[in-house]
Amino acid sequence: MAILDKFSQLAARYDALKQSGGDPFSIKFDDIISSVEGVVNGKRTLLFGTNNYLGLTFDPVAMERSIEAIRTHGTGTTGSRIANGSYREHERLERELADFYGRKHCMVFSTGYQANLAMISTLVGKDDHLIIDADSHASIYDASRLGHAPVVRFRHNNPDDLAKRLARLKDVPGEKLIVAEGIYSMLGDTAPLKEFVDVKREFGAYLMVDEAHSMGVLGQRGRGLAEREGVEDDVDFVVGTFSKSLASVGGFCVSSIEGFEILRLAARPYMFTASLPPAVISSTISALETLRKEPQRRQKLRANSRRFYDGLKNAGFTVGPEANPIVAVILNDAAVATAFWRRLVDEGMYLNLALPPATPNSSAFLRSSVSAAHTNEHIDFAIELMTRIGREFGILPDAEAVDYSNVTQFPRVSAERPGARAAKAPARRPAADVGAGMA
Amino acid sequence: MAILDKFSQLAARYDALKQSGGDPFSIKFDDIISSVEGVVNGKRTLLFGTNNYLGLTFDPVAMERSIEAIRTHGTGTTGSRIANGSYREHERLERELADFYGRKHCMVFSTGYQANLAMISTLVGKDDHLIIDADSHASIYDASRLGHAPVVRFRHNNPDDLAKRLARLKDVPGEKLIVAEGIYSMLGDTAPLKEFVDVKREFGAYLMVDEAHSMGVLGQRGRGLAEREGVEDDVDFVVGTFSKSLASVGGFCVSSIEGFEILRLAARPYMFTASLPPAVISSTISALETLRKEPQRRQKLRANSRRFYDGLKNAGFTVGPEANPIVAVILNDAAVATAFWRRLVDEGMYLNLALPPATPNSSAFLRSSVSAAHTNEHIDFAIELMTRIGREFGILPDAEAVDYSNVTQFPRVSAERPGARAAKAPARRPAADVGAGMA
Repeated sequence: MAILDKFSQLAARYDALKQSGGDPFSIKFDDIISSVEGVVNGKRTLLFGTNNYLGLTFDPVAMERSIEAIRTHGTGTTGSRIANGSYREHERLERELADFYGRKHCMVFSTGYQANLAMISTLVGKDDHLIIDADSHASIYDASRLGHAPVVRFRHNNPDDLAKRLARLKDVPGEKLIVAEGIYSMLGDTAPLKEFVDVKREFGAYLMVDEAHSMGVLGQRGRGLAEREGVEDDVDFVVGTFSKSLASVGGFCVSSIEGFEILRLAARPYMFTASLPPAVISSTISALETLRKEPQRRQKLRANSRRFYDGLKNAGFTVGPEANPIVAVILNDAAVATAFWRRLVDEGMYLNLALPPATPNSSAFLRSSVSAAHTNEHIDFAIELMTRIGREFGILPDAEAVDYSNVTQFPRVSAERPGARAAKAPARRPAADVGAGMA
Repeated sequence: MAILDKFSQLAARYDALKQSGGDPFSIKFDDIISSVEGVVNGKRTLLFGTNNYLGLTFDPVAMERSIEAIRTHGTGTTGSRIANGSYREHERLERELADFYGRKHCMVFSTGYQANLAMISTLVGKDDHLIIDADSHASIYDASRLGHAPVVRFRHNNPDDLAKRLARLKDVPGEKLIVAEGIYSMLGDTAPLKEFVDVKREFGAYLMVDEAHSMGVLGQRGRGLAEREGVEDDVDFVVGTFSKSLASVGGFCVSSIEGFEILRLAARPYMFTASLPPAVISSTISALETLRKEPQRRQKLRANSRRFYDGLKNAGFTVGPEANPIVAVILNDAAVATAFWRRLVDEGMYLNLALPPATPNSSAFLRSSVSAAHTNEHIDFAIELMTRIGREFGILPDAEAVDYSNVTQFPRVSAERPGARAAKAPARRPAADVGAGMA
């Protein structure tokens, strides 16, 4: 295993983490019951760690359209978009997305990861400059490696630092492309887009916004942060994904820039990959229609986000800076965060554990995401459960006056569904030796 | 459009190509009728340019399993494999693939492109060496950029050159990973794996084989070239895709190397992308079962490949070196190849046009791929049509004795299917000004 020796430290840390209890990075869902409920280790579990923002994974119309597409056009295209992989579904989704965003052009990619890879690595070349936020998603970092442009990082969400870095490039030839995200996936904070636009204009740069986590979430029509901030005209490229609000898989870029279509013959992660099956494209078209015609989902999502965020904050948790669907509870200590995560799973609540070095500022936290499909009871159950464990763990002050006996026991055993039988594990105490610092 | 100025030459060439007639890189399929028939420009068209080797895109069992998965588990997972995106389907597919290849481990990726990106960029690091064939697929080249290992290219399919390059690295520290492909996607030639294995052993390197185009095609069980050549024990990593023989989308890597599982926490294109929808995974599981239990598909595919290859060769065309499902007709002149491609589409036969610089040796060719679902009549129609056009174009000698009046007019108009009405375009003569040298 010499070729894997370079991962021996990582493997040792991971082994320690696994041996101390449940494995946070290999959770298997035995069953999925609804857009917010699944079965983990035989236990009915409330899902607070998906990106199913609009709760559309079980949307009956999307499911039927997807099924119809399989019956009509089969299970796959077996070809790239530039060969035999462009069906009428792909073309229609591109038209619908361009229309939704009020842009002239749209390209659809086989994953959101590849959308960023393709657009960023192609738009700027060796004579240009790529300017990215230091807390950018992995796909943006990987795109910066795949491309040939020199890369400059600016401090997370810091317009002054962005301006400083662009000022240094003022007399350097080449185009400058700034990349920011609508909502950052770890802490749920939004980019200061208005200020970024001022900087972009001052220095004549281009601006790309990745609305992966903000599409369907922010803005009056659900287009994302740029819409909410009223700066869409200054965003040259919008990148997004189908695996969050749109409940499938894939990615896209929309733009009104002249000459955009040539990117279909220049962007390698678009050209050299098989296109998405008709079933995936069809459910995405349906989900986009629902996103557009049911703003009440967005309103419910916002209300849920606010309820969850405020509930945790009022309980005394340190949360992220904004009440968006991504709600991070910052715990700092990786061992505590891991033990907390395990207790939650044991009690029937799934969310994501985020450990350094994947996290900003070497923090450790519990990353939740709220869905429009959560009921108030789901949210309140989650708040109560996290508060109870937080007190047990000494993270929150004890509140002797509170009576928990009547807290809704949400994830009840459902005998009707196979595999959903609960084998409630005895509550584990936080172990002192759980692996800190997973990479 | 300053940021797109770098593509102005490419755009000008593409415009010229488009204005001279049909656009070879933006073909839209108005409809797909079967695994080997579609509708292009309202005309029923025989498909000879897919990677649908086993003809499974409309397999009834795979379609029903896919439909069932949508009904049971929804349209998408909305999460990565290391978060909430591992359903029992993903786990099962990994088990089935490991079992099929007789290997201990399997990782499933959201695209085949990302499988190569993930494995190659992660297995070798900055202190190692990546050794790739000069004619490697774009995904292997992109992986070499994404990763940190120094890259050495050896001459296509040349064991002596491989040995020479490894000899130069003999005393240089670091692991060496050789990457080859089972069947190369442009000319359909296979790698000399036995010789590569000798070199690999001599220099203590690791060997990865991408069986994207050879899985389901070569070998007694359909595992690919390594099986056919009897060298599976010396192949450390097999990479493959679901978008060819398995008729969906996605990719995988199997291996028996100790410590493999840690790659799930190290390979960024695996970790930071949404997992495939249950529908896609389920049809893939079904297709893999069919691949295993119906060797007759492989036999028919081989017979079809041989029939098509021999037919074109006997007609006088310059074809690739081996009778595999990928059959390239080498025309060299890009303008002639483009005009030839257009005539074929007008006459109801779709295949891929390959132009430099995407092609080896700056050649231009027509790339066909054969399917097990092609009938002898399909193949003979294609040979006759290509021969007729080849003679018209002066590529083949005239054969005055041949009577074409009784050639099967395969792609007949089918009035029953909407959109399938033929509006047969007048046969175009090859234009002298068609864009040569598309990038």
